[in-house]
Amino acid sequence: MPQVKVVLVEPRVDGNVGAVARSMANFGLTELCMVSPCELTDEAFKRAKHAGYILREARVVESFEEAVADCFHVVGTSGIVTSGEKHYIRIPLTPREFAERLEGVEEKVAVVFGPEDTGLRQDELAMCDLLVSIPAHEDYPILNLSHAATVVMYELYQKQVHVGSPKKAAEHERDKLNEFFDDLLDAIEYPDFRRERTSIMFRRMMGRAMPSRWEFHTIMGVFGDAAKRIRKK
Amino acid sequence: MPQVKVVLVEPRVDGNVGAVARSMANFGLTELCMVSPCELTDEAFKRAKHAGYILREARVVESFEEAVADCFHVVGTSGIVTSGEKHYIRIPLTPREFAERLEGVEEKVAVVFGPEDTGLRQDELAMCDLLVSIPAHEDYPILNLSHAATVVMYELYQKQVHVGSPKKAAEHERDKLNEFFDDLLDAIEYPDFRRERTSIMFRRMMGRAMPSRWEFHTIMGVFGDAAKRIRKK
Repeated sequence: MPQVKVVLVEPRVDGNVGAVARSMANFGLTELCMVSPCELTDEAFKRAKHAGYILREARVVESFEEAVADCFHVVGTSGIVTSGEKHYIRIPLTPREFAERLEGVEEKVAVVFGPEDTGLRQDELAMCDLLVSIPAHEDYPILNLSHAATVVMYELYQKQVHVGSPKKAAEHERDKLNEFFDDLLDAIEYPDFRRERTSIMFRRMMGRAMPSRWEFHTIMGVFGDAAKRIRKK
Repeated sequence: MPQVKVVLVEPRVDGNVGAVARSMANFGLTELCMVSPCELTDEAFKRAKHAGYILREARVVESFEEAVADCFHVVGTSGIVTSGEKHYIRIPLTPREFAERLEGVEEKVAVVFGPEDTGLRQDELAMCDLLVSIPAHEDYPILNLSHAATVVMYELYQKQVHVGSPKKAAEHERDKLNEFFDDLLDAIEYPDFRRERTSIMFRRMMGRAMPSRWEFHTIMGVFGDAAKRIRKK
């Protein structure tokens, strides 16, 4: 994943700026640049919470060009999608497609968000190498600025790391659990004609549940005990 | 995609509530329920923008139980991921996995968010069928409430084009399956000290698997036969 700089063009609500900073910290980004922003009051720092450092270190510049000068790829965000093919600059990627596109990119990327009310201007969009637009409901497709930034950064972050969800069971354990289940079917003399279907059903269901190693072992214990007791008596 | 109700438990910052309402409208949701919320001032309506109707129509209730009473699947959200595998109650899905899991589900779903500062309590998490957690940077993994809600609703919306697949089991079937499993634990004289943990683990694992009615009945048949055979001999 390349270095990503967040650029806010003329943000007008300082609470939004603070919220964007927080979200940047949540998704591992630190470099914020603002073009002619509103004043940052306490509200911005309150909304930034533990990401006040991002606000304090943010750069303030006078123009779009200056903000993106050190970036190789300039990515504009837009809530407005025109469907005409000739508006080539406005054929947008979804945030997910954008994140996929960034894999393997090494040069620095600017992700640019326009003012809350108007979005990026045509001449600014024309300076972007690609456009990202968040699919949303047609009745009200315009997201709050920090929400839009959150969705884009969330997608970028999902490509980078996988945070500590517990160990998924290994193939070995999964096979073992299926054996235990089949053995339980044996023990209860499960009818042959339903046998295969039930066995496959169980495997699929467990596949969907994505059990942890601990869960597999616990269930195996229960099935194993049950089969043993049936046979012993 | 099933009907989804957003539940905010004791939200303390009314601006956040407004921001959640806006995001709901952005992603095509309308039903908001709050448990003992803070007062909604002008700030909430300002942040909701064109989604003020969601705030006006929101239901206010006194308890978690009341808020989720009409929902078949209760989904808790949590920013804290414990990595120990044995914290069975806290094995979370990512928002994307959750959205995938909802495909084909027809029964109503509650997606529950806790208070800004503390999140959902242990006893509330225990009432959830599954947990969703947003992968974020370890240095600051806690998202703002409306950002977290936005990410989850965004993921659900991205899946919405898909419909269909087999009927999911009804509440009645789910309770019955849990009874059959507990009865099997009885039959094998499962140790008391592990009892509750294993029982909850099973419920939660099945919650993640979202079995169809046919799958529920098939598994109940196997468990029922096993318990009967153990007792008969």
